Amino acid sequence: MSNNNATSVPEAYPMNGGDGEYSYTKNSSYQRAAANVAQTLIDEAIAEKLDIEDFSSASSNVFRIADLGCSVGPNTFACVQNIIEAVKQKYGSQMPDFHVFFNDHAANDFNTLFASLPPERHYFAAGVPGSFHGRLFPEASLHFAHSSYATHWLSKLPEEVTNKNSPAWNKGKIYYTTSPDQVFNAFAAQFRTDMAIFLEARAKELAAGGMMVLIMQTIPDGIHQSRIPTGIMFDFLGSILMEIAKEGLISEEEVDSFNIPVYTTTPNEMAELVERNGSFSIVKMESTSPWLKVGHIVNNTQQRLARELRAGMEGVFKTHFGSDIVDQVFDRLNDKSGKLINQLESSHKQGTQLFLALKRK
Amino acid sequence: MSNNNATSVPEAYPMNGGDGEYSYTKNSSYQRAAANVAQTLIDEAIAEKLDIEDFSSASSNVFRIADLGCSVGPNTFACVQNIIEAVKQKYGSQMPDFHVFFNDHAANDFNTLFASLPPERHYFAAGVPGSFHGRLFPEASLHFAHSSYATHWLSKLPEEVTNKNSPAWNKGKIYYTTSPDQVFNAFAAQFRTDMAIFLEARAKELAAGGMMVLIMQTIPDGIHQSRIPTGIMFDFLGSILMEIAKEGLISEEEVDSFNIPVYTTTPNEMAELVERNGSFSIVKMESTSPWLKVGHIVNNTQQRLARELRAGMEGVFKTHFGSDIVDQVFDRLNDKSGKLINQLESSHKQGTQLFLALKRK
Repeated sequence: MSNNNATSVPEAYPMNGGDGEYSYTKNSSYQRAAANVAQTLIDEAIAEKLDIEDFSSASSNVFRIADLGCSVGPNTFACVQNIIEAVKQKYGSQMPDFHVFFNDHAANDFNTLFASLPPERHYFAAGVPGSFHGRLFPEASLHFAHSSYATHWLSKLPEEVTNKNSPAWNKGKIYYTTSPDQVFNAFAAQFRTDMAIFLEARAKELAAGGMMVLIMQTIPDGIHQSRIPTGIMFDFLGSILMEIAKEGLISEEEVDSFNIPVYTTTPNEMAELVERNGSFSIVKMESTSPWLKVGHIVNNTQQRLARELRAGMEGVFKTHFGSDIVDQVFDRLNDKSGKLINQLESSHKQGTQLFLALKRK
Repeated sequence: MSNNNATSVPEAYPMNGGDGEYSYTKNSSYQRAAANVAQTLIDEAIAEKLDIEDFSSASSNVFRIADLGCSVGPNTFACVQNIIEAVKQKYGSQMPDFHVFFNDHAANDFNTLFASLPPERHYFAAGVPGSFHGRLFPEASLHFAHSSYATHWLSKLPEEVTNKNSPAWNKGKIYYTTSPDQVFNAFAAQFRTDMAIFLEARAKELAAGGMMVLIMQTIPDGIHQSRIPTGIMFDFLGSILMEIAKEGLISEEEVDSFNIPVYTTTPNEMAELVERNGSFSIVKMESTSPWLKVGHIVNNTQQRLARELRAGMEGVFKTHFGSDIVDQVFDRLNDKSGKLINQLESSHKQGTQLFLALKRK
């Protein structure tokens, strides 16, 4: 029943905790921009498709919301507040109690999350530790699930990629951007397995009529991974690691065996996975782009870009390479960020964020 | 709706976090013994008085349990497991999903709590940050609330005690054991206010037929506070502080203005407060004693006693005196613990733990 019934323990690479210089709390404006882009879409989906009658037969007057992969805030609070406002518009006089569940891995810094809960909130708050690649809530107990920039994280690296003798061994690279097909296929297969488990768990947890909104990175059909911002950034980090390896500070094999456990799906692939699951209907699906709204990252300060990337990615690097190398990587990224920004400016940004609103049948 | 609607923010003195030498995790065998004493009583109360039919009209098949003032474990896990086993005995084939809410102040070390959740648990777990002197859960959403050795903590020190010009100013002492009546009355009034708020909040949160078990320190009628273990221990700590003040390391006024925000109620007083609230019937009320079962503390090692006291009380001392003095206090307590143990051995231990099982009407 707990999330530990999964066959393998999912790996956790939490965002940087606390509220220091490199904390996610202070360095998550990209994710905030992403949430802003999605806000109107969420409002519309709730206004048009949420059916309060679906829940009126239940004797309890509680509306339960989960944010899956909430990290340490503050984005999750703004997002939850927005959902509650939209749901309130649908209710008449019988306003429910809102119960909000903030979920992330047990390794997430929940102490920081709890300390920064909005004091004037009009909901009851709870934290739920555990991987969303498994069950987290009782059956049919949720009315709205939300997950922003979390479901592109794989539950683990595909095994083939970690095996030196496999054709999917990713030599000299840390992502599949320009790797052989075998590498890409291994990432894609892991994502499809993970997403199947994710959808199955949520299908159990959401009450009939309940909604789920997923916001995740995506790649438009026909565009190559090397042309979108994620591919460019991860390759850039990979080239810095190879540079450090050439200088002898780490071995090349350490780079070969390191991969960022993230996958960028396509709208078609997600639609197919939802259909295969069978428990949800697609209420709304739209590709947008937060990149076009985060001019302050790209134009303002190079330092900011390096910091934001560090807040989100440091954990996964640190686990493999240790703290000293992480400092090296992100210091060098900072020095070179003018070059990275040039590459990002000419990248394909349109349609790299997927908004998907599902309804539990 | 949140716990912040209370007129003043309740003060938090969390048990020591982490899992180090002085952590509550490693030094809470007294509280564990207390839970063991209560276990049979909980089993009986559930077996005899919990009416599953009360919940069968609800469309959802979820049984929600809250542990209020859970601290960082491990006692809370053992206790919750015991409750679930007892409830399962009452259910037939329609076994519910169990949803367990671990509650404590936001300053509690939830990261440690979450990291130590039993991997093989058969329930869904959530953490709820906030003071139980206020609302924490949606209306009628809980089926079983439990609180062990938490409700004797006051939400704050009574104001009169902190006012130098008040007759309740507690000169030369840190507890009301041998203080003028005005001091005792101020503590008692604060407790009655706090308990009224506590019961009102729980009355809203528990579903009709739901149960609440409170385990707390108590004092038998006719026994003076200076004869029971709590009074003796707190006075002992007070005398150490006065000794430090006489040596000039802190001022006497710093001791005068410091008080341990804890109150020991009587069974009659609790019965009266429950009756005044009006929403609960008393299912079972019994005075027991964990002291008679913790021979290993009293007889085994003096060091252990000092450590257990430190794990639970350090927070409240540190807030007032700072870390250096805390080390002094507990080092001296350690040196003198033979003397304290002598006093405890001749103390009145019988009937110093109250077990109270309530049912929501």
